[in-house]
Amino acid sequence: MFVVKLGGGVGINYESVCADFASILKTGQQAVLVHGGSHETNLLSVKLGKPPRMVTSVSGYESRYTDRETLEIFEMVYCGKINKGIVERLQRQGVDAVGLSGIDGRLWEGARKAAITVVENGKKKVLRDDHTGKVEKVNLRLLQILLEQGYTPVLTPPAISYQGEAINVDGDRAAAMLAAAFEAEKLIILSNVPGLLKDLTDESSLIKDIRLCEMPQYVGYAQGRMKKKMLGAVEAIRDGVKQVVFADARIENPITEALKGKGTVIH
Amino acid sequence: MFVVKLGGGVGINYESVCADFASILKTGQQAVLVHGGSHETNLLSVKLGKPPRMVTSVSGYESRYTDRETLEIFEMVYCGKINKGIVERLQRQGVDAVGLSGIDGRLWEGARKAAITVVENGKKKVLRDDHTGKVEKVNLRLLQILLEQGYTPVLTPPAISYQGEAINVDGDRAAAMLAAAFEAEKLIILSNVPGLLKDLTDESSLIKDIRLCEMPQYVGYAQGRMKKKMLGAVEAIRDGVKQVVFADARIENPITEALKGKGTVIH
Repeated sequence: MFVVKLGGGVGINYESVCADFASILKTGQQAVLVHGGSHETNLLSVKLGKPPRMVTSVSGYESRYTDRETLEIFEMVYCGKINKGIVERLQRQGVDAVGLSGIDGRLWEGARKAAITVVENGKKKVLRDDHTGKVEKVNLRLLQILLEQGYTPVLTPPAISYQGEAINVDGDRAAAMLAAAFEAEKLIILSNVPGLLKDLTDESSLIKDIRLCEMPQYVGYAQGRMKKKMLGAVEAIRDGVKQVVFADARIENPITEALKGKGTVIH
Repeated sequence: MFVVKLGGGVGINYESVCADFASILKTGQQAVLVHGGSHETNLLSVKLGKPPRMVTSVSGYESRYTDRETLEIFEMVYCGKINKGIVERLQRQGVDAVGLSGIDGRLWEGARKAAITVVENGKKKVLRDDHTGKVEKVNLRLLQILLEQGYTPVLTPPAISYQGEAINVDGDRAAAMLAAAFEAEKLIILSNVPGLLKDLTDESSLIKDIRLCEMPQYVGYAQGRMKKKMLGAVEAIRDGVKQVVFADARIENPITEALKGKGTVIH
């Protein structure tokens, strides 16, 4: 059992990722695919005259400020265009895929954080009406039923709050929670970089291997979205996943290569 | 067992439809909800500079010309915004809803009709690259598993072709196929009119009761989207559904009222 998280950055080749995923499933392995959609959401937000507002929390993590209008744009891209596009590609490859969000069957539950404190131009500021949160609980039952019956779940944020509100959650950490709940062997986090780099401008500066206890000395290399991936990796391994691999989605057979250890392996 | 099809026209009160649906499910009845999204799709299409192109077939039925770009806009609205909005509302009402499209688990399968002959300005014209089709096969297995396990499916087009392409299909006829496959007692088709009217400008001209054998004499009253609802009703009853009700989604407790026979009852 393994979990693949496919990022939503620029340059993702959905066709080759889906073909590779399908070929692995044909060997009889079970897996769940989780995906993002940030780049496409940014594009649609701009087209709709509601440009994305990325905010940085006091602890230095970047996220999308998500009012109700943004949440609906987010759902259109993540649950509509990207989720159904992936399910369609997998179906065409012979995988009986079923696309779900964290709202469906309350797959991903957590508390809503309606107010967040952010730092803008060096000043602290409280933003309200935010529809974000963090996955605290994975309800495996529906996923287990689907897997037992031969279906392959394709999951995407949003998640759902305990009060039944859709909440934007970080996909990497949600995938980490999922992998831990499944006691998965591996969590493969694919994005548009080869892994964790010492120097962002030099892809040959890839850090190939990190033991959990060594994480503190590598955290400083993580920039932007990589910060939450690092957090997700720590959480996944702490909660029982054997190996997390940050790997490149842009190459041929990206999942096969990552399963072989190509990328940054955290264990 | 009953199936509700909720139209996607102007003026639908999703909040009250979902509350009513949830209250009926609490009495222990099983049901599946199918929904549309045409009005919102039109709005988004216009905003994205890709205004809807409604075409009329040689046999007089209106449909949306769906090239790949339109299909993705369609998926964003139907599978994203509307489907997840309904699932969220139902979850908030205590219904463990699961939103799916016809692509997921190949729920709705049919042949793609890539070229259609339409009539524009009195002239016949062939349009190519259309991603449309008609549901010919309902794969009940996934839905039955979900229902047995206490989940309530919320379904939306698109469907999937035998070759694994997403296809835009008529939601009323897809709901009719579904109701027939389930051998449902009733199919409730809710929209923003009280039912079939003799005079579109006069809501008191409602036709209350039609027997299947009398359909030919009423077909002439159906305008626009009502034509496909009539077709769906005929197909549903011919294939074993006991009763189809065209009813008003804009009133209080619309499903409860329709189940009692308020609207146009076809049997």
